[in-house]
Amino acid sequence: MKKKKNDGCRDLSLRQTAGFLKKHDNYIILSHASPDGDTLGSAYALYYGLNEIGKSACVICPDVIPEKYSYFARKTDHVSRENATVIAVDVADKKLLGALEEDFGDIVDLNIDHHVSNVRFAKNLYLDSDAAATAECIYELLSFMKVNINDITAKALYTGIVTDTGCFKYSNVTAKTHIIAAQLHEFDINAPEINRIMFDTKSRKLLELERMVLDASEFHFDGKCILLPVTAEMQEKTGCSGTELEGIAVISRSIEGVAAGITLKQTDTEEFKVSLRTYPPLDASAICKKLGGGGHKGAAGATAHGTLGEVKQTVLKAVKEAMEEVYAGVNTAE
Amino acid sequence: MKKKKNDGCRDLSLRQTAGFLKKHDNYIILSHASPDGDTLGSAYALYYGLNEIGKSACVICPDVIPEKYSYFARKTDHVSRENATVIAVDVADKKLLGALEEDFGDIVDLNIDHHVSNVRFAKNLYLDSDAAATAECIYELLSFMKVNINDITAKALYTGIVTDTGCFKYSNVTAKTHIIAAQLHEFDINAPEINRIMFDTKSRKLLELERMVLDASEFHFDGKCILLPVTAEMQEKTGCSGTELEGIAVISRSIEGVAAGITLKQTDTEEFKVSLRTYPPLDASAICKKLGGGGHKGAAGATAHGTLGEVKQTVLKAVKEAMEEVYAGVNTAE
Repeated sequence: MKKKKNDGCRDLSLRQTAGFLKKHDNYIILSHASPDGDTLGSAYALYYGLNEIGKSACVICPDVIPEKYSYFARKTDHVSRENATVIAVDVADKKLLGALEEDFGDIVDLNIDHHVSNVRFAKNLYLDSDAAATAECIYELLSFMKVNINDITAKALYTGIVTDTGCFKYSNVTAKTHIIAAQLHEFDINAPEINRIMFDTKSRKLLELERMVLDASEFHFDGKCILLPVTAEMQEKTGCSGTELEGIAVISRSIEGVAAGITLKQTDTEEFKVSLRTYPPLDASAICKKLGGGGHKGAAGATAHGTLGEVKQTVLKAVKEAMEEVYAGVNTAE
Repeated sequence: MKKKKNDGCRDLSLRQTAGFLKKHDNYIILSHASPDGDTLGSAYALYYGLNEIGKSACVICPDVIPEKYSYFARKTDHVSRENATVIAVDVADKKLLGALEEDFGDIVDLNIDHHVSNVRFAKNLYLDSDAAATAECIYELLSFMKVNINDITAKALYTGIVTDTGCFKYSNVTAKTHIIAAQLHEFDINAPEINRIMFDTKSRKLLELERMVLDASEFHFDGKCILLPVTAEMQEKTGCSGTELEGIAVISRSIEGVAAGITLKQTDTEEFKVSLRTYPPLDASAICKKLGGGGHKGAAGATAHGTLGEVKQTVLKAVKEAMEEVYAGVNTAE
């Protein structure tokens, strides 16, 4: 797993990373922009852990930290940028530092991450691409260093793990993920409350938007495909935008018999963000590549230009062609 | 935890239960009616385990086993009722045997269960009320007996555990639950596929029903209460009924700011099944008691008679009174 590359980025083992953390001080810990539970949970757990061993550290997030994370995201130390040691957590690319890229993108001393796609922008990298979440890496580091874990650290770590695994639902979950969860359950983490905050809380405006989207939804190709349009008008009427809309694409792959779920989010007068979710043998990545985008086999995206009607036709055509290739005799006539 | 009661039901320890299973043969394993993943997963895992140690066993379910469980619910042995040893799994009361109650209700030799409310109807009872699922009990039994677990047994056990924990989300999850999950992950269980089947698959007709219910939903008491009516007309139009409707009540507690979610399912011309979901300090059980029903603090139910309008008024009045008791100065004026 450890690649030796002459790219100026040094791969560290768990032991070397622990050594690095013990050796330095005055840490600035960076999360990625549009923060989620893993980047924040990892950053704060690392902060609490470093505090336990007498180090000064602060967490800096490129964006405002959503209120819902306040059960572990507390005020951190003040650390001056001069002589600081900069750590990025769960940041696969310096671009993902958003507003902090200019100031910190080229001076990250240590990057702790689990993304196989990590572009190796830091001076030192601890990468465990088998970890379901960066929080797993942080847990292993703190355990290896025999750092005392307390309830708030455990809450932050548990949040990171459930965020990136959909509460233990996804294919990245391993036996180790469950073993770590078992160990975190020994602390007073109130896991049901964390899961309620992370998974079972939907705003009224999002509920309203979902209702509109479902009213406008269309089934195609013998029910194998659903198309969910999220127009600018719907977004304006409900006040839902940005990351709040992410859940809509999830709906598209939860319907029985659906192999391709298309979400079309209007981003400008004649511009739509296409999110495609597929089940094997359909390959979302291959379909989105045809549309000028890309992604993973099960989830991919692209940007399409035109009216809603035009974009629908373009995307449905690409999905239809892919279906005709993989399903013998599927009825794609409309 | 083990209560000594002179009620003709003998409490068995794990060791005694293992001894019982080794001693007898020709097992008839019963699941409860309206079967779920835990009763079926437990029944089949026990069946596969008993087969491994050379015992004959069959699984009998009072209702048709839904197709979605076919990844572990296979054809079992033929066992004659004469001289059979009857085991019930995940059955807290003989009434829950449904169509099988008459034939088997009074002749259950061993009951394996995790419900604290178990009414002790069998001759022998292995009850672990700390287990999140009966499947946890079965796993412990098979482990204690050193019975070989194979992939299909592991799939059945994992299904039982995720069913009763909402995929590790609920408050019944303990460190032990995660440790067992970790051990089951060592087998080829394809957990993401099981979770997709169990949690992320919604029929088109249920989607249609949800759309109708959301269109008819009402917010009350400053947004602290949502009311979801599921009329007979909606059920007829979509063809959704019975256990398929269970997910609706879940929606009612997932909305930000909602402390009381009311679902009114029409069951006859002037009859409604009330499902109430609440968050502390509201107590669903206390509210439903006033309506002649009962349940748990967070989830309770009752039956109400009258037109939809009348039932709404009755239930909203009870919720309003409870809110006025626990929230100082809440605006319950409508």
